[in-house]
Amino acid sequence: MRGAVMYAPGDVRVETLDDPRIEQPTDAIIRLSAACVCGSDLWPYRGIEKLQGPTRMGHEYVGIVEEVGSAVTSIRKGQFVVGSFWASDNTCDICRAGYQSACVHRVLMGTIGSQAEYLRVPLADGTLVATPELPPADLIPSYLAASDVLGTGWFAAVAAEAGPGKTVAVVGDGAVGLLAVLAAKQLGAERIIAMSRHEPRQKLATEFGATDIVTERGDEGIARIKDMTGGLGAHSVVEAVGTQESMMQAVHSTRSGGHVGFVGVTHDVSLPGMDMFNALVHLHGGPAPVRRFLPDLMRLIGDRTIDPGKVFDLTLPLDQAAEGYRAMDERRAIKTLLQV
Amino acid sequence: MRGAVMYAPGDVRVETLDDPRIEQPTDAIIRLSAACVCGSDLWPYRGIEKLQGPTRMGHEYVGIVEEVGSAVTSIRKGQFVVGSFWASDNTCDICRAGYQSACVHRVLMGTIGSQAEYLRVPLADGTLVATPELPPADLIPSYLAASDVLGTGWFAAVAAEAGPGKTVAVVGDGAVGLLAVLAAKQLGAERIIAMSRHEPRQKLATEFGATDIVTERGDEGIARIKDMTGGLGAHSVVEAVGTQESMMQAVHSTRSGGHVGFVGVTHDVSLPGMDMFNALVHLHGGPAPVRRFLPDLMRLIGDRTIDPGKVFDLTLPLDQAAEGYRAMDERRAIKTLLQV
Repeated sequence: MRGAVMYAPGDVRVETLDDPRIEQPTDAIIRLSAACVCGSDLWPYRGIEKLQGPTRMGHEYVGIVEEVGSAVTSIRKGQFVVGSFWASDNTCDICRAGYQSACVHRVLMGTIGSQAEYLRVPLADGTLVATPELPPADLIPSYLAASDVLGTGWFAAVAAEAGPGKTVAVVGDGAVGLLAVLAAKQLGAERIIAMSRHEPRQKLATEFGATDIVTERGDEGIARIKDMTGGLGAHSVVEAVGTQESMMQAVHSTRSGGHVGFVGVTHDVSLPGMDMFNALVHLHGGPAPVRRFLPDLMRLIGDRTIDPGKVFDLTLPLDQAAEGYRAMDERRAIKTLLQV
Repeated sequence: MRGAVMYAPGDVRVETLDDPRIEQPTDAIIRLSAACVCGSDLWPYRGIEKLQGPTRMGHEYVGIVEEVGSAVTSIRKGQFVVGSFWASDNTCDICRAGYQSACVHRVLMGTIGSQAEYLRVPLADGTLVATPELPPADLIPSYLAASDVLGTGWFAAVAAEAGPGKTVAVVGDGAVGLLAVLAAKQLGAERIIAMSRHEPRQKLATEFGATDIVTERGDEGIARIKDMTGGLGAHSVVEAVGTQESMMQAVHSTRSGGHVGFVGVTHDVSLPGMDMFNALVHLHGGPAPVRRFLPDLMRLIGDRTIDPGKVFDLTLPLDQAAEGYRAMDERRAIKTLLQV
């Protein structure tokens, strides 16, 4: 099969690779319906995360089940399924508390690589969620978004306790930030402030439910949010970038007693103790337990209540994955869909 | 009147000071029934917090109302009242959300000084809570504990979401940590692990409801908590110290999806972003909104359900405040009560 491999920062190649096969009786093999590039794939692409040699890429996936291992009971050949970037058993204490991304048996899908034609999914019963029937082709991008960026944005909005009567600010206008706007809207937030200075992203944020756009960032962005909230700060702030500036912008844009939901991967970030103490906010985040939300999100997609697939503004054949990375790195594209 | 002044690290003197007087129509003057020394008073005593010249000390207080300003309506002369270390209006949006320690009109009581015979309390209507009648003398220490250490320990336990079915670990065996044990017990926690290596404090933790004592700290302490919780970590962890080691011990002793409540003043602490991301815990803390809990805590004290006054293991006349500081600094006393 064909699949993407990163050799070095900026060097992504699509090559012929061995087809995956069942390794454990709890595995499934799926034929991908589409693949995509994640904002977090840009960390190694930019050299911020170190590569340990050539690395198979991709951790978002939707597809048709080709084969299941002998211990798989709830997933069947021929089903259309969505999974997330951590395979999880969905039965341990941590999973049952809704934190499947910290499952005691979790397997990181990024080490397997879903920017390819086929994918082995460990712990298939716990990881995969099937649609009642095969979905129409135009919904594939939205289901693919559910696999990570929608589920992650949704978790961030839930972690920030977005809801009725709340003013929600979203730091970050990548796919995750934009979908946190969509999530905040679905969760019933009263006011949703998207922090973005890119016109196409502002437009999509507004389509997804943003009521206000703030272009300032850092201390100016904080001051603007305070101005808009009677000097208090937002009730709920989503952080979807992962830099020092964006984390501190999120913390200091939140009123005391409010909630910060952070999902940007916090490389080289350090939270000063006294800032966190004096802010008196709630902080919750990390690798999103997308699996918790998948059944609900897939239902909202299936009945066309939400259209998260709009975050894909560039579609390329899998063989042009390198250009997909480049376009996202240069911010020419929000998110690249790869046709398999 | 007599009152304590800190001149320099290690140098506390009790002197004759001007009696306080009503400065704002919302003020009250109280005659203190007892005063005390807080663990946080040790920060400047040890030179970790810088003093700006000679400083009036003390921010915990109970007493009898002597006089009220013309705008005070709910507090009357002759009442026995308890207040907290932040005076608050109890009417702003932040107060009404339960975060009176971040009230938009808050005044820090530590700048006024309650280790004295009389105290001016700003925003008296919002700040002070009166008992239905004058309490018996033996309950004074418990009401005084409610003013800060009990309210702070209680907030930490609430922030850590201690409750039925939960395993709660408490990092720190000072008065706040010990009273967080008491709070966890009252909140219905199933298992309460006190982390302490001091025998008298272990004993008091057990009296307050601790089911287990762990003497290890740092990485060994984390490993011990993991061992005791099926490898997962505690559901709820209270941090009541404020050092880098204690904060990281708290974060890494908590299971993914669990809650850390931190109330130790986090001087020189820095939380590594990737640790916080990967831990996937909830973090909440800061200056405790004691006022939120005061009515309930005062009721529990009045009906003798709880006895938080047990944390005072040294009683001295106000004029011997210096020895009270010294005993706490040298860990000869958990907490010093000063007779006024």
